[in-house]
Amino acid sequence: MRIPLKRHSVVPLYQQIEAYLRQGILSGSLAANTRLPASRQLARDLGVNRITVENAYAVLETDGLIYSRMGSGTYVLSPDPLLVIPKDQPGATWPLWQQGLELRSSKPRSSVEIKKASRHPELISFASGIGDAHLFPAEDFRKVLQTVMRRDGIAALDYGEPNGHAPLRETITHILASQGLQTRAENVLVTAGSQQALSLVSQLLLKPGDVIMVESPTYSGALELFRALGFKVVAVPVDRQGMQVEALEKLLQQHHPKLIYTIPTFHNPTGTCLSTSRRIELIVLADRYNIPILEDDFVGDLRYEGRSQPALKALDPGGRVIYVSTFSKILMPGLRVGFLVAEGPIYQRLVDFKRVNDLATSTLIQRALEVYVTVGRYQSYLRRSCQTFRKRRDTMLSAMQRYLPAGIDFDPPHGGLFIWLQLLENLSSTKLLSFAWEEGVDFSPGNGFFIDQTGGDHWLRLNFVAQSPDQIEEGIKRLGRALKRLMAAP
Amino acid sequence: MRIPLKRHSVVPLYQQIEAYLRQGILSGSLAANTRLPASRQLARDLGVNRITVENAYAVLETDGLIYSRMGSGTYVLSPDPLLVIPKDQPGATWPLWQQGLELRSSKPRSSVEIKKASRHPELISFASGIGDAHLFPAEDFRKVLQTVMRRDGIAALDYGEPNGHAPLRETITHILASQGLQTRAENVLVTAGSQQALSLVSQLLLKPGDVIMVESPTYSGALELFRALGFKVVAVPVDRQGMQVEALEKLLQQHHPKLIYTIPTFHNPTGTCLSTSRRIELIVLADRYNIPILEDDFVGDLRYEGRSQPALKALDPGGRVIYVSTFSKILMPGLRVGFLVAEGPIYQRLVDFKRVNDLATSTLIQRALEVYVTVGRYQSYLRRSCQTFRKRRDTMLSAMQRYLPAGIDFDPPHGGLFIWLQLLENLSSTKLLSFAWEEGVDFSPGNGFFIDQTGGDHWLRLNFVAQSPDQIEEGIKRLGRALKRLMAAP
Repeated sequence: MRIPLKRHSVVPLYQQIEAYLRQGILSGSLAANTRLPASRQLARDLGVNRITVENAYAVLETDGLIYSRMGSGTYVLSPDPLLVIPKDQPGATWPLWQQGLELRSSKPRSSVEIKKASRHPELISFASGIGDAHLFPAEDFRKVLQTVMRRDGIAALDYGEPNGHAPLRETITHILASQGLQTRAENVLVTAGSQQALSLVSQLLLKPGDVIMVESPTYSGALELFRALGFKVVAVPVDRQGMQVEALEKLLQQHHPKLIYTIPTFHNPTGTCLSTSRRIELIVLADRYNIPILEDDFVGDLRYEGRSQPALKALDPGGRVIYVSTFSKILMPGLRVGFLVAEGPIYQRLVDFKRVNDLATSTLIQRALEVYVTVGRYQSYLRRSCQTFRKRRDTMLSAMQRYLPAGIDFDPPHGGLFIWLQLLENLSSTKLLSFAWEEGVDFSPGNGFFIDQTGGDHWLRLNFVAQSPDQIEEGIKRLGRALKRLMAAP
Repeated sequence: MRIPLKRHSVVPLYQQIEAYLRQGILSGSLAANTRLPASRQLARDLGVNRITVENAYAVLETDGLIYSRMGSGTYVLSPDPLLVIPKDQPGATWPLWQQGLELRSSKPRSSVEIKKASRHPELISFASGIGDAHLFPAEDFRKVLQTVMRRDGIAALDYGEPNGHAPLRETITHILASQGLQTRAENVLVTAGSQQALSLVSQLLLKPGDVIMVESPTYSGALELFRALGFKVVAVPVDRQGMQVEALEKLLQQHHPKLIYTIPTFHNPTGTCLSTSRRIELIVLADRYNIPILEDDFVGDLRYEGRSQPALKALDPGGRVIYVSTFSKILMPGLRVGFLVAEGPIYQRLVDFKRVNDLATSTLIQRALEVYVTVGRYQSYLRRSCQTFRKRRDTMLSAMQRYLPAGIDFDPPHGGLFIWLQLLENLSSTKLLSFAWEEGVDFSPGNGFFIDQTGGDHWLRLNFVAQSPDQIEEGIKRLGRALKRLMAAP
């Protein structure tokens, strides 16, 4: 045990030891039943006389903070609740460099905290970015973990290859091919969710102050990332055919972005798909202006109707598009396994950069996923998900027709997770949210999806896959009530 | 299934579909037994006539690439090996931005590849930075995973809290307190290994071009990270009492670093401990010059003899030191769970930055660790590890006396994982490595631990904990042979 001692202090050493342990016990950081070192051992550790330690222990024992069991050792007792030191932040003065950080931090109070404060007993949430946790095959996965731990033993707990478990990378190529995107395991990099993939790619290609081009609106988590990394974010507007590629060339000439980030299929938050002609034009333009494309295909497979569009990556003549996807949306988000596909020199650079950032992604989870996610199982899981999600979308659309007042505008999405709703121009989704929480329903207000976190205030995003049909029905009913209250408000 | 089609091409659509699937099957990306969509479905997906798809399938079936089973569907066959397209990189011309990346990449061929090439059937490695995988309690951990999956179900697979699973953070504070460092769960951030903690802290506090101060030599993975992030790395030399803090003030005035990165206890690679007076002086200096300290305490608990030193964090008057540690070194590296401790405004900034980088670290693993790593279990595991590792250190030291030629210099380490060896001035550890591989032993040559990857060529690092005593004996014998060959070489 390492205890800081002031050897030239007027406070005797035994009192310093006693005070340090007392502080730990009363503040709760030294937990009840923690075994303290034998006095002989602690004396050796600290380079003090054994009597010094024994004196310190004796005082603590007299005060009922520790107890000795003959032949077994000395243990911490639960302190008398009256004595416990409150866990308040000590009245420390932070060093100057910390005060600077405080000023720069302009993060609003997180919506989680606010929601907790609103305290509706049974909030129905359409705010999430993921699927329905109740559909996740947790029990099957438990068995797979067992199989893997029994089969691989300690190998399952080793660092593994820096670009990902090879058989999992192979499986990923087979799944992608079964969905129409052909690639090779040597071009796949397994990441800690697709969020890490976005982080690695953008950091490798941009430095702070560089320009990144995104759709407006776009995935809020990407915007937060790009802001945190100090990039200048420039937006291309989105219409019903996705990114307005016609407007892109002028923006490229004007801003010289280092990267184009796009969600071409079932876009987050709007749900639109980039048309085929725009896909081709986007690749041509990026090539002409020598700009890499980062394609976020987070739910490209979740199509419920309409004609499919090839991934941008499938149109890539070679090394132009970096493709990012994930298992999180249809399987288990907590596994934190995503992947990217890239060719050319950037691939090895990404592998190296991933390695210096976190060495590797849990091999155990990778091995388990590899066993669990066969192509056949993925295909049938996807089929079932599409059926379930299509029904939920239809439930939500019909509930919207019944319960929402007139003047709401939206396009029914052909796939993905989200409905993107436009309120009347004079209505604010931020204000709607307070009413909604009171009624017991939650959604994502539009502002978070825009680069300056403004300009989207009459928009909102609803996740239609995360709740059961009954909950969807009830949630939209509540949203209708909230909207009527908002429209009636002064 | 998404297949890119050129609708105005002279190539008929059925041939485009057929060619795309054929390419996938022959290149192996479309795996055998993958089910293809029903022709009606694929026709709908692609917006083509059903006959078009049927024609494509018919050609593929005639060529023995797919087969249909009545009522079940159409499946991919294993292609005739003679037809398989080699997996070579296509002769693509990379876009200009990729060529730029290629030029910037100066990474030497990885040592893993070289080692594979050396092909000794039973290489004994003293090169690793971790413990002995065979001591990892894989079977116990398997049972714990089961318990957690049964107990928590889908909750174990959710995103979890952005700063880490609360009970695990509580456990971490109890373990730290049992080792003499008192902190609170609200100041702990769980990360993907300590490597991610280093990455988050340094990125938050520095931008490319900023100066970071490190010990010379220091942990190679930190150097690689700082280089990859574009920081200017300035070194403070290390002697037998650790960082030469006396030299620090002048360097601080000269270089204005934004962060001091240090491994004060059982330093990597030298194994030294910073003396108490230097610890205090370091804190005072950092405070005077308003510079944060990043303390990497990767094996602070693994002490085999001598007096303990308090962690720098334990001497921190508040918010000066950011403390990083990990379970990887004594438990299971593949779990990828580390943590940091920080107070003040930087804590929330780090939580936010972690969230935008990868959302969260696998909750399943965090929950399992929380159940597995009780304070008592950690303490007894630590006790056993110290006993085992002390014996292995002694085995290595005595083998070195017997098998290594005279003129080798080193200090027997009092803890940690490494012995840092100095060869005679005219001998190169890089050259020694070739002989060592031929003899069947591996180590880490010194250059990788120095900021310019030079200046350490007569140093080498041996890990004394990762091999069994028999292997240590044999490995050092081989190293002795390699050294004699090197000394005899012209």
